[in-house]
Amino acid sequence: MNYYIGLDIGGTNLKAGVVDELGNILSESDIPTGADRPQEVVLQDIISAITGAIAASSVSKNNILAVGVGSPGVVDSDTGTVIYNNNLGWHDFKIGELLSKALNLPVRVENDANAAALGEVIAGSAKGVSSAMIITLGTGVGSGFVINEKIWTGFNSAACEFGHMVIEKGGRLCKCGRRGCFEAYASASGLIAMTKEAIAKNPESKLAKLAEQEGHVSGHTAFDAKDLGDETAIKIVDEYIDYLACGLVSLINGLQPEVISIGGGIAKQGEKLLAPLREKIDKEVYGSGHDAHIKKTKIISCTLGYKAGLIGAAMAARQIA
Amino acid sequence: MNYYIGLDIGGTNLKAGVVDELGNILSESDIPTGADRPQEVVLQDIISAITGAIAASSVSKNNILAVGVGSPGVVDSDTGTVIYNNNLGWHDFKIGELLSKALNLPVRVENDANAAALGEVIAGSAKGVSSAMIITLGTGVGSGFVINEKIWTGFNSAACEFGHMVIEKGGRLCKCGRRGCFEAYASASGLIAMTKEAIAKNPESKLAKLAEQEGHVSGHTAFDAKDLGDETAIKIVDEYIDYLACGLVSLINGLQPEVISIGGGIAKQGEKLLAPLREKIDKEVYGSGHDAHIKKTKIISCTLGYKAGLIGAAMAARQIA
Repeated sequence: MNYYIGLDIGGTNLKAGVVDELGNILSESDIPTGADRPQEVVLQDIISAITGAIAASSVSKNNILAVGVGSPGVVDSDTGTVIYNNNLGWHDFKIGELLSKALNLPVRVENDANAAALGEVIAGSAKGVSSAMIITLGTGVGSGFVINEKIWTGFNSAACEFGHMVIEKGGRLCKCGRRGCFEAYASASGLIAMTKEAIAKNPESKLAKLAEQEGHVSGHTAFDAKDLGDETAIKIVDEYIDYLACGLVSLINGLQPEVISIGGGIAKQGEKLLAPLREKIDKEVYGSGHDAHIKKTKIISCTLGYKAGLIGAAMAARQIA
Repeated sequence: MNYYIGLDIGGTNLKAGVVDELGNILSESDIPTGADRPQEVVLQDIISAITGAIAASSVSKNNILAVGVGSPGVVDSDTGTVIYNNNLGWHDFKIGELLSKALNLPVRVENDANAAALGEVIAGSAKGVSSAMIITLGTGVGSGFVINEKIWTGFNSAACEFGHMVIEKGGRLCKCGRRGCFEAYASASGLIAMTKEAIAKNPESKLAKLAEQEGHVSGHTAFDAKDLGDETAIKIVDEYIDYLACGLVSLINGLQPEVISIGGGIAKQGEKLLAPLREKIDKEVYGSGHDAHIKKTKIISCTLGYKAGLIGAAMAARQIA
């Protein structure tokens, strides 16, 4: 069995782990990222985390073949550089070269969302499929497109940002500055915004009362109130799934991936989300009226959860070793 | 030099040609498709057209290595079958197998728009690029995505239909039955619809007078009236390019192709279309505010015109021979 290091860099914490060639995590270490410190200091912490993860596993350093890094931001995988990340304040951080020298191992650097998508394809929900789009419904809408186990990064490493595909021109303002992005509707933040608007208009609804009891509105408030039979919540959930279906149908029409795997907080609703979503997609997809014999994209749930990034980074390492 | 047969099947006519390995057409024959006749009769005509094209070239049959077919509709390239085409009334037409037996040559069948995209990448505007999206602004909006000279057809051969990506949810009705598709705005038909609406609202405009003189509204009426300085036309052209930019920015954010090549009737406007289009895309693309150092997708014109389909079909043949 061969082993790889996966490194998943987050805004607050970073995780390093030893992962076997099948995608099983053998050990993990978790440290604060402290991205605002000088890059050489961050690098020393990363090396310590990796060394710690190796020590905590029963794997000899000699059996570790490569390191994979999942970093937020725009990444140049060819040179192993984090070109730009606003949240971490990183510019041209040559993390690949530096880690490679320090550990004497080949290093592959990928965008974190893309690495997570690769994890789902090699060791998770989309295992063995020829092409998959991984969609993460969290604070934003993340997307990663994987073809024959290769991440599609575009010619400049900046793909895949389908969260910033406009589905309603001139619509809801997105954090990216555009109006009407898929992310502005289909993210947990989008659902929360819709839920708050509905509560303001329907202060007597069970939805409003539930939010009041809980003291806040989250991505599951509308789903919970729908379970209580609340009409306002039923409408909001339907509207949310409608927007989600709208974006996914466009991706299916354009790319026809074998699978779309859905992860992130909202995906925890499971079939409560997926069953009506599939129904809407079936109705809207190109040629749905008369091309029923065309093979359909499967809509499923991600299975690796927050570990997808770490596992996927290690699997990216597997691909270069 | 090696040679290939390209076959471009249209609703009205089909073209067969002998094409060299560089994408030069040596001879061409053009016959009515007559798609409503039995498939074996259509097939005999296709074989005659191919034989005619070979005879008209100075190429010996022995130097022809393969046949490429570009057919409208949903195509299964693995089995060489036109699964479904509404306009031609074809269902499960095993054209690849039948042609291969008749000509004793390997045959590759592709969707016609995808074949045309391949032509632009191998022998036209996007020659030598790692990835290209070819967008055709005609009656509809065609799209073809080519990665490393391979057409991306999706797992079910039904990609790439980005014309049916919704950019304005609930908006203008598209021929596909959905509302708000990119095609409903960015096609020549979309521009004509916008132009007619503007004429109805502004009957005294130069735009209205020009349309009256010409007796009809076409995809260039608004551009022509803009050249005359007409305010209504200036607004319509701006609005049209705004919609076009909206869809293209989403494709860039998602896929980051090295090049987007624009063809079809509207593309004849050249820089009158492309210069303002690039300006709008630059402003809207993800990270445009602060990631100016990220390599940008080039927006250019297609160069092969209506020959792209024939050349691309032959280049698809080149890939299997």
